[in-house]
Amino acid sequence: MSFDIPHLTEITLDDLETLGTGAGILGTGGGGNPRLGRLRLQTLLEDDAYPDSVELVDPRDLPADATVASVGGMGAPTISVEKFAGGDEEIQSLRAIEDLSGETVDALIPGEIGGANSMAPLCVAAMTDLPVVDADGMGRAFPELQMDTFFIYGTPVNYAATTDERGNQVVYRDIDSAKRLEDLARAITVQMGGRSGYAFPLMTGEFVSEFAVPHTVSLATELGRAVERARDAGTDPVDAGRELLGGEELFAGKIVDVHRRNRDGFALGSVTLTGLTADATLEIEFQNEFLVARDDDGELLTTVPDLICLVDTDTGAPVMTDALRYGQRVRVLGVPAPELLTTPEALDVIGPEAFGYDVSYDPLPRDETGW
Amino acid sequence: MSFDIPHLTEITLDDLETLGTGAGILGTGGGGNPRLGRLRLQTLLEDDAYPDSVELVDPRDLPADATVASVGGMGAPTISVEKFAGGDEEIQSLRAIEDLSGETVDALIPGEIGGANSMAPLCVAAMTDLPVVDADGMGRAFPELQMDTFFIYGTPVNYAATTDERGNQVVYRDIDSAKRLEDLARAITVQMGGRSGYAFPLMTGEFVSEFAVPHTVSLATELGRAVERARDAGTDPVDAGRELLGGEELFAGKIVDVHRRNRDGFALGSVTLTGLTADATLEIEFQNEFLVARDDDGELLTTVPDLICLVDTDTGAPVMTDALRYGQRVRVLGVPAPELLTTPEALDVIGPEAFGYDVSYDPLPRDETGW
Repeated sequence: MSFDIPHLTEITLDDLETLGTGAGILGTGGGGNPRLGRLRLQTLLEDDAYPDSVELVDPRDLPADATVASVGGMGAPTISVEKFAGGDEEIQSLRAIEDLSGETVDALIPGEIGGANSMAPLCVAAMTDLPVVDADGMGRAFPELQMDTFFIYGTPVNYAATTDERGNQVVYRDIDSAKRLEDLARAITVQMGGRSGYAFPLMTGEFVSEFAVPHTVSLATELGRAVERARDAGTDPVDAGRELLGGEELFAGKIVDVHRRNRDGFALGSVTLTGLTADATLEIEFQNEFLVARDDDGELLTTVPDLICLVDTDTGAPVMTDALRYGQRVRVLGVPAPELLTTPEALDVIGPEAFGYDVSYDPLPRDETGW
Repeated sequence: MSFDIPHLTEITLDDLETLGTGAGILGTGGGGNPRLGRLRLQTLLEDDAYPDSVELVDPRDLPADATVASVGGMGAPTISVEKFAGGDEEIQSLRAIEDLSGETVDALIPGEIGGANSMAPLCVAAMTDLPVVDADGMGRAFPELQMDTFFIYGTPVNYAATTDERGNQVVYRDIDSAKRLEDLARAITVQMGGRSGYAFPLMTGEFVSEFAVPHTVSLATELGRAVERARDAGTDPVDAGRELLGGEELFAGKIVDVHRRNRDGFALGSVTLTGLTADATLEIEFQNEFLVARDDDGELLTTVPDLICLVDTDTGAPVMTDALRYGQRVRVLGVPAPELLTTPEALDVIGPEAFGYDVSYDPLPRDETGW
């Protein structure tokens, strides 16, 4: 299966707004603030010292023995809005894992397509003249790093580094599991003030072509474009996005309650919506990202790994967990997860049980098209 | 000034019991359980695969350009008793900082002479055939790593590593302060289950000869011997220890209350003593180590950096913070701190204010002899 979308060969200044919108929607509330990610990338592409565009490479065109590294930001989205990045955290982490491994990285890939983390590899690519693989490790965003298809499908936890905005760097060696790396790197990220720039893991082109979720940079850009086109045409931008993704509208209403706290480096909480006309309510729980949606009776309607996307009722713009506030009018989309996220080995790590919910994954109906 | 004690040239099996007793007393309640440290070293020295003794080198005899590394255990003493060490955490950390720096270590040194951390470098020395410097970075034990004379007197935070008992290793690079290294390595130690084996920093022989507290391995051994000799002769072992250290007896009584909790990787709390005959009480607060002693009126009698040592009333054996319990009969010794700990730059880091007490350091009276 695949989405019926064009596959881009580069990202230019003209794509940033639409990529940001699409990555925000796919981010299911997290993945880092897409506006900040976009501004950072825009600054680089406008700078004469750097190229005007970043080359995208189709994962199926990667040489089998290419060395691919994932880079991005770690931390709670709430924090990244107040604690700005220094800008070279990811590139310093990348250099560290190149040093340690003795390998030279040939291409970068987002760990998650959602939010700012779709932009982080593009920023590093602009600074290093490397291409970015048109794919990612989630097809959305998830709060923890072991939830990446890279680790789910067996990339060893080989070389990993996190760096803060002052250049303090922590390197992880001989780590026995991705969950352990998550625990260690999360504790360090908290000590680094709640945000760090990471590089991990190193993968072969062959692995990436098989186990990364394909064409998601193109998908995010096309999704943003569909929303924009509908706005320009005066049609419904939310419907435009939903149709492209093959999802369904779970709810429409306004936010009447938000519980949010930062704990152990995550933004945790829930948001409650009531219908604008009907008497129904919907509660969505989140850990950086939206995880599950419950109806009036507390029944789980939709759960991870399917995507729960909050968008502005009128503009179709994504609503992130750090920006939820009373009175907002939003619509909630449920989007079937990429197939790579729905295998038994994936559900062990990113199914509802993995997040502590006592239900099995009941997938949303899926189209012929899709991922 | 110096203690009038013989300077040892090696540590053999025969020294372990006395070294453990002395290091326990100097550990001021922490520094790791000295009995566990002793058993680990004993096992190595009894093993035919390793030498029968570890060479001690006088810090004044170190070549100026020798490379000296400190190794030991990090974590709360309460935890080390239940979560045994794997045995090669420190040596793996040592190899990591040798790798990173490209340097070969010529000698090891304890970061603190107190508790098990006097033994850790001896264990690594037995396995690597390296000598151990007869000195340490505290002349006692302190809870945090920036409290080492190595960092107080300006060794850069250069190469640092921590490893757990499964071989998971975290390496710290370009860290901008010793306090930052403490925060990062402590968070990792908590994630590693509350105990890790560390190696940091790398120092020159010239630096160590000037800024390490000298002859403390010999001092701890001689202190244990003085206690043992008094036991054998039927004289008072507590007095024997006190006389050697030039300290005073602050209190004698029994433990009537203990508050203890593990938080952020530390054993925190307080212990209250009442006099056996008189109506007086003494309260001692601790963070891994005993920090301050208060009288009935809440007045601070003795504070860091001076040593507050709890010993068994009859045997003179050290009482560690993890072993405090209701009903124990103990005597409390106050021992003047090494001079290297009483300079203005040292008091900034290890004086009572540095631990959050609103008093200035009021030193215990000190003898002609001492450190």
